[in-house]
Formats: sequence, structure tokens, C-alpha cells
Amino acid sequence: MRLIKTLRGGAAYYMTELLLEPFLDAAKDHIDNRLAKILPSDTSLPYAHLFDAARYSLLSSAKRLRPLLVLATATSYGASLECALDPACALELVHTYSLIHDDLPSMDDDDFRRGKPTLHKVYPEAHAILTGDYLLTRAFEILAQAPNLTDTKKIQLVRSLAAHAGAHGMLGGQVIDLASENKQIDWKTLELMHHYKTGSLLIACLEFGGIIGSAPADDLVLLQNIGRNIGIAFQIIDDTLDVTSSLEQMGKLSGSDLAHQKSTALSFFNLEECQQQAQTLLTRALSELQQLSQPAPLLASLFHRLVERNC
Amino acid sequence: MRLIKTLRGGAAYYMTELLLEPFLDAAKDHIDNRLAKILPSDTSLPYAHLFDAARYSLLSSAKRLRPLLVLATATSYGASLECALDPACALELVHTYSLIHDDLPSMDDDDFRRGKPTLHKVYPEAHAILTGDYLLTRAFEILAQAPNLTDTKKIQLVRSLAAHAGAHGMLGGQVIDLASENKQIDWKTLELMHHYKTGSLLIACLEFGGIIGSAPADDLVLLQNIGRNIGIAFQIIDDTLDVTSSLEQMGKLSGSDLAHQKSTALSFFNLEECQQQAQTLLTRALSELQQLSQPAPLLASLFHRLVERNC
Repeated sequence: MRLIKTLRGGAAYYMTELLLEPFLDAAKDHIDNRLAKILPSDTSLPYAHLFDAARYSLLSSAKRLRPLLVLATATSYGASLECALDPACALELVHTYSLIHDDLPSMDDDDFRRGKPTLHKVYPEAHAILTGDYLLTRAFEILAQAPNLTDTKKIQLVRSLAAHAGAHGMLGGQVIDLASENKQIDWKTLELMHHYKTGSLLIACLEFGGIIGSAPADDLVLLQNIGRNIGIAFQIIDDTLDVTSSLEQMGKLSGSDLAHQKSTALSFFNLEECQQQAQTLLTRALSELQQLSQPAPLLASLFHRLVERNC
Repeated sequence: MRLIKTLRGGAAYYMTELLLEPFLDAAKDHIDNRLAKILPSDTSLPYAHLFDAARYSLLSSAKRLRPLLVLATATSYGASLECALDPACALELVHTYSLIHDDLPSMDDDDFRRGKPTLHKVYPEAHAILTGDYLLTRAFEILAQAPNLTDTKKIQLVRSLAAHAGAHGMLGGQVIDLASENKQIDWKTLELMHHYKTGSLLIACLEFGGIIGSAPADDLVLLQNIGRNIGIAFQIIDDTLDVTSSLEQMGKLSGSDLAHQKSTALSFFNLEECQQQAQTLLTRALSELQQLSQPAPLLASLFHRLVERNC
């Protein structure tokens, strides 16, 4: 196990790194198990194939990054797994819906996702659209039904999700993305697109953890900044991996951005500069993390993983 | 002005009919004005065409049936317009999103809606999909931000919307609809499809009004039954109008169900039988309406309109 470079001293982070692995394993198991239960599997209903399709996309082999971020943040504030698990899963549903719609023939027209054919390659296209709609709707329902949270917290979560998945968030990012195809855009526009399309939902993850854990208002603002920095860093790395890694590693065809003539971080910087940029953003996020009212070592380790990954 | 047949005596309903017209006019004005303000119109944003597209579909000339049902129900319980207006508008957003997605080439492939070209005929298809996604997301945001409602009521509204717009509601109905194309289905399946695809959101309207007006639990159950009966009656009449009325009256090409080889009420019953069925359901709904803890004369008049309309 690698000793992570640290801001607060090696021993503490070495300790965290030792704890991160078991945390991730245990948390991912809980997430996967809960996701499998969160969608009905009643085959007697005349619309049961909606659930089959949703399960096909949702229960793929996936990193579960978003729910893990929720759990890592909520844990920092001492919130219980019971409170945090369902809202964490709701964000995975939203992420999955966005992938299904992004992959559609009229959007990115992608054939592979998470190592298998995209949903519209297996089900009719109309069905893929409705499955996305369903996952989004179900996510809000999960928040409204989340156990052991006050109605006030639930409403805060609904508001956070709607804001970050909406026009001034994920959807706005996708609109910019579509409008940028076959076009020269500047770095500022690309960064805004990254921030919206990828960063927004990551911000929601940290905000969810903070809301569930009753974080003070100052922390919620900090968590948003942290999410923004990590989101852009994450997407820069994603852009580099899109070119350098294989289908096996990424679960989608590499170089697909290039094929769509989309601008990516690599349209502006070389590989090394991209990695440097991502590191700078990571350092900024880690420094902001230290300003939170509670230590968040699991989150810090997770950020390292996200930026220093190779798939 | 026609004297509506009544269950509780002609004079009272004649009175209501006299009041209904001004109520509808005033309520529709409030709804249209609020809808125009509910979507941003900031053209400086790089994703501003998302709002343009949403406004194109939402701000069409439309009956605003769903928000009117919310307001008529909430009024029966003495709730203020201020409390009810935003949640009422949220349901119009959801209805509009469902129309946009239903009209897509991979679904019903319709060219006209509300008297003008469908959204994907004016904007790229990808854009139409995202606009639908946006309206759905924004609807939940509106509920979470609704003024003068407790968080508990807001969460009840979110839960109601997610349930009725979800798999066991509107989306399930659309899935059955797609699966039934070019196929013989029985009356029971068609009725279930009507109930889900059209009835669910109408049930949500009545439930919204009840929640906003703090209706007793028994009333909420009754409102669901009433919504179910009115929903099926409404759809039966819609099926007959699809064949008998013109583009000018309906805002979409008539006979489009026939063109898609879809089963409709007219596949099972003749025109007169359909109207009779709708009247029976209306009578049932009106009788249930009388069992509510509060008189709901505006709702009764509105139901008559819905079932006895010719466009």
C-alpha cells in the first residue's frame, strides 16, 4: 500500500489509507446490496420490463463513486449508515439516468457503458428514455421516503438534488456539451462544462453527506467548493483516461471524445500539464477539507484515489 | 349557460356553474402568469436554449387542466392561492415533460402538439429529451421551494408526485402503451393503461389539493378514488375526440391513435357506449365527491366540463 503524500503529516494519512480499503469494501457492499433491493423485481406487472431495464443499467459493475462520497462525508459527521445509505443510492440512480440519456443515439450515440452494451442497444430506444425518466423520478421518491431523516433534511436533499441535477447543474453541462460538438470552444467554457456536467453531482454528494450529518452552514459552503475542485480534477483525469486507457479498464470505448470531435482537457494541455492541473485542484480541495469543523480523513483518501486513478 | 345535471339539487349547481367561469378565468390567468415566471429567461447563459425550449412547450396555449384541478381542490379546503399555485404549476411542468417525451420519434413520433409543431421538430431531438428531463427536475425543485408550506407538506407532495409520475403511475402507463402498439390488448389492459398514463397525474392533482388544504386522511383516500374515476372517464372521452375532432380543436392531428394502430376505447365500444361509460364514471366520481368532509362544488363543475367537452 502506497504512502499518500499528505498535508497534515504522513502517519495520520498512512493510518487512513489502511482504513480506506476496508471502508470502501464494506461501503460498496452495502451500496450494491441496497441498490439491488431499491428497484422492484416483480415480473407479473405489465410494465415489469421497465424494472428489468433499470436493473440492467444500475446493477452493472460500477465504482459507486457518488454513493461512496456521500457515505465518506456523512461518516465524518458521525451520521449512521442507516440514515445515509438510501440518499447515497438515490444519487447513483441519478448518475445512471444521466448515463442512459447521454448514451442515446441522438446524444453521444455510445455503444458501450460499464463494460457492456448501452441500454438502447439491448432495449428499444424509447424504453431507454423511459428508464432514465424512471430512475430520476425514483431518486426523488427515495429521498422523500428515506428512513431516520427529518422532513426538513429530506427537503434539503430534494432541493440539493434538483439544483445540482438541473439546468444550473448536470443538465446545463450536457446542453453545453452538445452545443460544443464539432466546434472550437475555449478552456473557460470547457471548465464550466466540466463543472456542471460532472462536478455538480459530486458537489451534491458532499452536500448530501453534510446535510445528513447536520454539518454547520460554513461547512456546507466549504463542501461545495471542495466538490467543485474535485469535480473538475476528476473530469480532467477522465479526459486523459479517455485517450490512454482501454475498453477493459474504462468500460467504454477509449478515444470516444476524439471520435465525436469534442474538446477535452487534452485539446488545451498535454498529458503532463493535465495531471499537474488535477494535482493542483486536489491540493486545493485537501486544504479546504482541513477547514471543515470535523476531520474528514476518509474523504481525503478518496480524493487521492479519484485523481490518481488509472481507470 | 347550461344547467348542469346535479346530484344535490339544481339550484346549488347552477350557482356553481355561474361561479365556475370566473374561477377558471382568474385561476388560468394566475397559472399562466406564474408559469411564465417559473422558468428563467436569462439569455446570457451558455445553456439558455434549454429554457427557450422549455418555454416553447410550457407556454403554449393549453387548458391547464391539472393546475386547475389542484386549485379547485385546495380551494374546497380553504387553502390560499399563494400556497397552492406553485405546486399546481409543478404538475403542469410534469405533464409537459411527459408530452415532450411521448411525442419523440422513438415513441409516438407526433408532429403537432397544442396546435404547433412538437418540440423535436423545432429543436434537435437530444435537446427535446433534455428539456423533458429539465422540466421533471424543476418540478421537484418547485415543490421543495414552495412558499408557505411546512416541510412535512412539501415532502408529502414530493412523495405523491414521484409515486404518480413513476413506474406505478404515468411511466408504467407509457410502457404499457408502447408495448401495446400493433397488438390486440383486452379492455382490462387498456383501462389499466388509461388509469396509469392519464389517471395517475390527475389523482396527484386532487391529492396535491388535499395535502395543501390539510384534508383529513379519509378525504385523501376518497380523492384518489375520485381521481381514478375521472381519469379513466377523461381518457375515454379523449379517445373519442381523437377520432372525431380536428387539429384546430385538439391541437394535434386527429386519428393519430388509429395511425399508430393503438387500441383505444373505440376498439371495444361504439361512440355512444363510450360516452355512456364516461358518464357512469362521472356519476361515481360526483357521488364520492359528496362524501368529502368539505363541499367541492367547483371540482364537481370542472368534472362535468372534462367529461362533457368536445375538444
